[in-house]
Amino acid sequence: MLAVHLENGIVSTQQTPVPQREPGFALLRMLVGGICNTDLELQRGYYGFSGTPGHEFVAEVVEAETRELVGKRVAGEINLCCTCCDWCRRGLGRHCPNRTVLGIVRHPGAFEEFFTLPERNLRVLADDLPTERAVFLEPLAAACEILDQVRITAGERVAVLGDGKLGLLIAMRLAAEGYEVHQFGRHREKLAIAERAGVATEIPEELPKAEFDWVVDATGSAEGLRAAVAMTRPRGTVIMKSTVHGGVTLDMAPVIVNEISLVGSRCGRFEAAMPWIGNPAIRLEEMLSDRFALAKAPTAFARAAERGVLKVLLMG
Amino acid sequence: MLAVHLENGIVSTQQTPVPQREPGFALLRMLVGGICNTDLELQRGYYGFSGTPGHEFVAEVVEAETRELVGKRVAGEINLCCTCCDWCRRGLGRHCPNRTVLGIVRHPGAFEEFFTLPERNLRVLADDLPTERAVFLEPLAAACEILDQVRITAGERVAVLGDGKLGLLIAMRLAAEGYEVHQFGRHREKLAIAERAGVATEIPEELPKAEFDWVVDATGSAEGLRAAVAMTRPRGTVIMKSTVHGGVTLDMAPVIVNEISLVGSRCGRFEAAMPWIGNPAIRLEEMLSDRFALAKAPTAFARAAERGVLKVLLMG
Repeated sequence: MLAVHLENGIVSTQQTPVPQREPGFALLRMLVGGICNTDLELQRGYYGFSGTPGHEFVAEVVEAETRELVGKRVAGEINLCCTCCDWCRRGLGRHCPNRTVLGIVRHPGAFEEFFTLPERNLRVLADDLPTERAVFLEPLAAACEILDQVRITAGERVAVLGDGKLGLLIAMRLAAEGYEVHQFGRHREKLAIAERAGVATEIPEELPKAEFDWVVDATGSAEGLRAAVAMTRPRGTVIMKSTVHGGVTLDMAPVIVNEISLVGSRCGRFEAAMPWIGNPAIRLEEMLSDRFALAKAPTAFARAAERGVLKVLLMG
Repeated sequence: MLAVHLENGIVSTQQTPVPQREPGFALLRMLVGGICNTDLELQRGYYGFSGTPGHEFVAEVVEAETRELVGKRVAGEINLCCTCCDWCRRGLGRHCPNRTVLGIVRHPGAFEEFFTLPERNLRVLADDLPTERAVFLEPLAAACEILDQVRITAGERVAVLGDGKLGLLIAMRLAAEGYEVHQFGRHREKLAIAERAGVATEIPEELPKAEFDWVVDATGSAEGLRAAVAMTRPRGTVIMKSTVHGGVTLDMAPVIVNEISLVGSRCGRFEAAMPWIGNPAIRLEEMLSDRFALAKAPTAFARAAERGVLKVLLMG
């Protein structure tokens, strides 16, 4: 079968055997995969990754212990957790210390013709949900995670910093919940998508200071995080939604004097994203920049890394 | 009258006129002042302070518009707020953007024979409360502030990092609330005070990793803050309780991946500290290292800065 391979920053494709399905696992045939910023970071060498990447997907179940799953179209939770530690028992398998992660940590990813996941990770998709919307379930769950972690009073103003894919999903998701969302970015075409979803958007010459009780940093940069802190009012909260690599130098004195909270936030529950994935208020179709056959993965990765490009899909 | 003067890192005393009492203000005669780490930081040049320091005090009311206050023994909130902004209306005058701060920001401090504060800042002390306990009201309020900001479920384990004055107050206050408190420090004699208050204490060779859901950093150092983050379990909270000056370089990737919250925390409500200031479970007397007459302030500041010394008092 055809599999994407990532090693030393080089994306290639190769022929490999169809993987063996272990007990409790399903064998999946990839229908669509989405290239995420994390995939581009793996390519840049973070986490010393080598293997098949890919964790955003829609697939068809080919083999499974549970008969009813076979033939079904599914998406899936990407953390493969042990099910028996404290974290797993609390429903927080995403923090299981024994976990592997699809296409990220010690489990081959979805960018190959066939791959495996535990059956318990799978979510069967509604027949009327387009595959090219369903492929956004994983990043939409990451956007929803914010509301699992902090309680934002209905109707409050929330600033979103950054207009990448995750920033747009967050802004649209929060706007759909009824918050007054202000998104600050650098790309007019990207911000226009959020604007159509009811988000107030701006390409600011200078970012506001101490103006929001809630600020989501989705810039992925140390500079963005520092700006997010400066935008936050005393007693306010910065949600750190994108990974900044290496040491970030922050002046903690204003964080302490102004009693600001910084909340790290990563991937989220699929259950929280399911009610929203079919909702047209989240303008997922407009976030699709390009599609490539799986065999063209090297070109697709290069395209996804271009400035101004949003979601690039790999078609199985 | 005699007043302590701090300028360019030099503590001196000088003769100055008794201050004028403005409308709404009380004229206070200092009984006891406590030297705080913030005073030592002012001396080291942070905030470009020049003038009379001092914000921990017990005083006698000499003149006031409210007759009943005259002759009373009082402590006082240190933030002089405008009373009419959004923050003040929400009872958060400590964050009022128009505030001055006793002995810290544009209002002469308590380390002088007579000083002034708005009457609304004053708290009349119970007759049976010893003055040398009451002088801890301000730092005890800062310790109590933690429980105003975060909700820690009853009985949970909390780690306190650092065994300075604030670290001890925090550890004893949280232990008195019923939490299982583990304090990590470097001074056997200081930790012994918390130990007697029911805190489990330790001078560790190496700090634990990912072991606590709640960690209070009271070290005042960037290194301590980094250690506090490393001690915190996924989804846990670090309360940043002591000011670290200058840029702090933190690796934010584990904060984000483990969804850790960092909560800045500063001074607190006197109302929250009042029920505890007379409680012998908070072993304040044991935290007294030395007493000096106001005229000996230069010596007192030098003593307070010595390693191993806890609270140094100035006697009016």
